[in-house]
Amino acid sequence: MNKKELLQLIIKKRSFLCVGLDTDIQLIPQYLLKYPDPVFEFNKAIIDATIDLAIAYKPNLAFYESMGLSGWASLEKTMKYLNQFKGQVFTIADAKRGDIGNTSKMYAKAFFEHLDFDSVTVAPYMGEDSVKPFLEYKDKWVILLGLTSNKGSNDFQFLETGNGKLYEQVITKAQQWGTPDQLMFVIGATHPEAFKHIRQLAPDYFYLVPGVGAQGGDMQKTCENGLSADCGLIINSARNIIYASKGEDFAQAAQKSARKTVEEMANYLPVFSKE
Amino acid sequence: MNKKELLQLIIKKRSFLCVGLDTDIQLIPQYLLKYPDPVFEFNKAIIDATIDLAIAYKPNLAFYESMGLSGWASLEKTMKYLNQFKGQVFTIADAKRGDIGNTSKMYAKAFFEHLDFDSVTVAPYMGEDSVKPFLEYKDKWVILLGLTSNKGSNDFQFLETGNGKLYEQVITKAQQWGTPDQLMFVIGATHPEAFKHIRQLAPDYFYLVPGVGAQGGDMQKTCENGLSADCGLIINSARNIIYASKGEDFAQAAQKSARKTVEEMANYLPVFSKE
Repeated sequence: MNKKELLQLIIKKRSFLCVGLDTDIQLIPQYLLKYPDPVFEFNKAIIDATIDLAIAYKPNLAFYESMGLSGWASLEKTMKYLNQFKGQVFTIADAKRGDIGNTSKMYAKAFFEHLDFDSVTVAPYMGEDSVKPFLEYKDKWVILLGLTSNKGSNDFQFLETGNGKLYEQVITKAQQWGTPDQLMFVIGATHPEAFKHIRQLAPDYFYLVPGVGAQGGDMQKTCENGLSADCGLIINSARNIIYASKGEDFAQAAQKSARKTVEEMANYLPVFSKE
Repeated sequence: MNKKELLQLIIKKRSFLCVGLDTDIQLIPQYLLKYPDPVFEFNKAIIDATIDLAIAYKPNLAFYESMGLSGWASLEKTMKYLNQFKGQVFTIADAKRGDIGNTSKMYAKAFFEHLDFDSVTVAPYMGEDSVKPFLEYKDKWVILLGLTSNKGSNDFQFLETGNGKLYEQVITKAQQWGTPDQLMFVIGATHPEAFKHIRQLAPDYFYLVPGVGAQGGDMQKTCENGLSADCGLIINSARNIIYASKGEDFAQAAQKSARKTVEEMANYLPVFSKE
């Protein structure tokens, strides 16, 4: 999916919501355990209930890997299902990968060829040659960690480098590697004050924003400071939506929670000339 | 495996060689394709041929993930096989993971519980709470990226932070999170000059050293500058060993290449009082 198509999706749905598929078999309704693949059944029901509201889905790889082979089977099934909606949703492998060139190439193969995700989250510590192999795929995206939502973001990301803080250096330097048509940044909603400044650093790039909801990020401030003329934000919500109910009505409850989030989002979204 | 047991292994084998299982189905001898799981057959033959020489094995996750479900099946089989040699080898999941706390916890579950690795490589960008969940397992290890072997290590790791370079900050700060009995650092052999200084920063920690061989790192300088009284180094070699021959004699060729490397290593290894 290219940037224009992504924006069309946002305009059509008047939403920039990403649903995080952090599916934990211990937290899903117990009656699903009677199915051969409870994790997939859960994901499918969540997707079906929210497909008109969400523009993106983000399976969190750790949750699938923690179950070993059966988790990977659930992930593959989920992606096969999501890819039936090609053009209607943007898919994100939340994998935080990154390694030396020949290894990143293999990760790119895993996520872009084998699983056919539209994008993958990548960690910046190893620099350019760890990111480049992911950028060699047309209409696929790298979502590079910029300023993360967790407490540990304070350990290194705010270090002064003599030329801005580390996360600012990452955001500045990475723009030499990838254009706004193939590169986004992860910017946590728990730093709403930083968005204004980051928007100046990378005006034309999309940001994937975790941390609204369970982690305490502020939607209003994030939107006020982070939205660009092309929207430029994809806000992720996982636990608040997928675990809105632990009963048999989990999908309806997820839909209700997603709708509420999208209605709030729509207040902040600019009116696009193409609408 | 704890630090004492690791050192006993090094003393017994007079080796600190790790064999990198970067197994690429396109590079293994073609006659293996007749087996139901060619990647596992290859790994098993390499392990059998080098088990008396190597103290560690390091599957590189990207190579398995690139094959999807069948790759994960090969990885699980390889780990089941390696875990039959418990106490005789140290196992490393080269995965470069790291995410917010609840997600790192899931990765820890994947690698330490499900696959039962002794250690996992972790990226430091997201800070303390992204690393801690891995440190909560007794006798399991985090191997944190310090100074990596690739060209991109120059992009951020050498940035001056006002209190040392970024990689020095990482190595210094992480020692507050984990002891030398549960934490190691990745230090690339392509920076042999940095080892002396790093050894002063973290005198009692083990370093996992990639970059000898195909990436051009210098074994002699690495050993002269990096060895500690407790050895303190695990040197990885992948391509030079596992692809020493592309014919049916690949396992014997791997053994020969591993033996040559171990003989070179033994020259630098101190004589331990317990020997």
